[in-house]
Amino acid sequence: MKKIINKPEMFVPEMMEGIVAAYGDKVTLLNGDFRILVRNTPTKEGKVGIVTAGGSGHLPVFLGYVGEGLLDGCAVGNVFASPSAQKMADMIKACDRGSGVLCLYGNYGGDRMNFDMACEMVEMDDIETQTVLVSDDVASSPKETKEKRRGVAGMVYAFKIAGAAAERLLSLDEVARIAKKALDATRTMGVALSPCIVPEVGKPTFSIKDDEIEVGMGIHGEPGIEIRPMMSANEVASLILEKIQADAPLSKGDEVSVMVNGLGATPLEELLIVYRKVHQILSDMGVTVFMPHIGEFATSMEMAGLSITVIKLDEELKSLLSEPASSPFYTNANK
Amino acid sequence: MKKIINKPEMFVPEMMEGIVAAYGDKVTLLNGDFRILVRNTPTKEGKVGIVTAGGSGHLPVFLGYVGEGLLDGCAVGNVFASPSAQKMADMIKACDRGSGVLCLYGNYGGDRMNFDMACEMVEMDDIETQTVLVSDDVASSPKETKEKRRGVAGMVYAFKIAGAAAERLLSLDEVARIAKKALDATRTMGVALSPCIVPEVGKPTFSIKDDEIEVGMGIHGEPGIEIRPMMSANEVASLILEKIQADAPLSKGDEVSVMVNGLGATPLEELLIVYRKVHQILSDMGVTVFMPHIGEFATSMEMAGLSITVIKLDEELKSLLSEPASSPFYTNANK
Repeated sequence: MKKIINKPEMFVPEMMEGIVAAYGDKVTLLNGDFRILVRNTPTKEGKVGIVTAGGSGHLPVFLGYVGEGLLDGCAVGNVFASPSAQKMADMIKACDRGSGVLCLYGNYGGDRMNFDMACEMVEMDDIETQTVLVSDDVASSPKETKEKRRGVAGMVYAFKIAGAAAERLLSLDEVARIAKKALDATRTMGVALSPCIVPEVGKPTFSIKDDEIEVGMGIHGEPGIEIRPMMSANEVASLILEKIQADAPLSKGDEVSVMVNGLGATPLEELLIVYRKVHQILSDMGVTVFMPHIGEFATSMEMAGLSITVIKLDEELKSLLSEPASSPFYTNANK
Repeated sequence: MKKIINKPEMFVPEMMEGIVAAYGDKVTLLNGDFRILVRNTPTKEGKVGIVTAGGSGHLPVFLGYVGEGLLDGCAVGNVFASPSAQKMADMIKACDRGSGVLCLYGNYGGDRMNFDMACEMVEMDDIETQTVLVSDDVASSPKETKEKRRGVAGMVYAFKIAGAAAERLLSLDEVARIAKKALDATRTMGVALSPCIVPEVGKPTFSIKDDEIEVGMGIHGEPGIEIRPMMSANEVASLILEKIQADAPLSKGDEVSVMVNGLGATPLEELLIVYRKVHQILSDMGVTVFMPHIGEFATSMEMAGLSITVIKLDEELKSLLSEPASSPFYTNANK
């Protein structure tokens, strides 16, 4: 296993130690717990809390979005594994300021089960919670059963937009409504070229032939919708936009934001070459792009591949997207 | 060749089109030239220009540092190949505001030859230039012949610090002095785990066995100082800091900034695990870290590996490092 790590079982705690060593003025461990990261910067009185949780191995998702104008807290499990309900409950309690907490996370069985338990646990402390699930991956289930879809890179837009809504001191109902609205307007699909290795497993999670690409693969290596001969950047951009367009049609005059997200090993140059084509296709349709996000926002460690996310904006979403946000791993100061 | 590209010979122009499509309000092509990127934001009257140039394939280096508080222009060649002297001369002319231009670039033969010619060409237009070479890679030549060293990730600190000096409207002499001073205080060394593929070549630039790591490798795959059995994150951090410390000793009370730079395929989690150890070693020495940079700042496309850069700060360098900077690919707003 070719990874620059120490003992595989120390992967998560040592990563957390690294985050806190580097950015301890911005984020901190909750009571020294290596599974819970919370903001360490002044937070407005009465602000709704926003938390997420999920498995490790996807940086900057999830931990990287704890910050100003983004999330208040994040609990992580082992690589690709949900944290416990107890950790989630501890985090929710720490992030409540009397106005309630939005649990905003990807639609995966383990995370749902544990978050549901955690929300019940904090209810006994009179903490109000609401849940909004991220299920943006159009490849993971057909439109008719879209509630089964997995949550992937589109969650970053939800973190950003809901985070801005909470900074405006909107109510929990309002923040939840806006998160839901952002996600209803968000679609993602990805392609993978090579697998990743879970440190404690020590071997690739799947295999793809040297001349093939897997279309619609999930960020944990969940099977995609088809395996194809290797495709060009233009073909990848066209195919993904076609699938997204079939699910949530765009039309002339629409405004969107687009994320071209590297899964880990794919160079920034390639993401830009793909963005070029995305931009061309959308321009030809009369659709304009606001604040494109091109880089690594939600990864699968060293997996090669990328995803494209499109979020259709209205004035409310656009205004929230463009408000300042700042974490050690994300800022829109330069967007 | 498993790359998400179109025709290999279109790699550079299509990447440039992607940059301009995404960030055209911040940066633009000089006269539509796909090899020259310049700032597209208001620039202070009389500011010294700072330019760089080099081969493509290292994003965010070099193009990604054209922006406010950073560079005014950047010329790029094909992957790992210098742009022509003519392109450099065109760029220097465009970036002069009557106060002269600093050419700040990596110590590679082709870039030096072409920049020297370009500086002669613009001299005929009465444009004053000065040159500061980046040669921070301690593995590329011994201390006695350090002028032969290659320039690697440490150049990002030079861009940032010299960029801030130019924004303060200091003279060309002063900006050059400060760039030189920053680089005199900067040391870098890297390790590589896997090669990258130059698109127009179509096969890996070198090979490393599955259980080996190359120590001191350059960002174009230049041979390192030794090949070792695979090392742990702690061993990598200790070895690199030892080499840097042997070259430019640090002592109790010193303040530094540290960059842990991914070469392309190495996950952010691993960079943080390495940073954890770097931070421990420096803390044990009584050395404090200011504004750590952890992420991908200077890559070799999909090469796996990382480099560590240490820059020793005094008040002047620290103050310049912490001033605002913003390009589509770099911001210190969240540092």
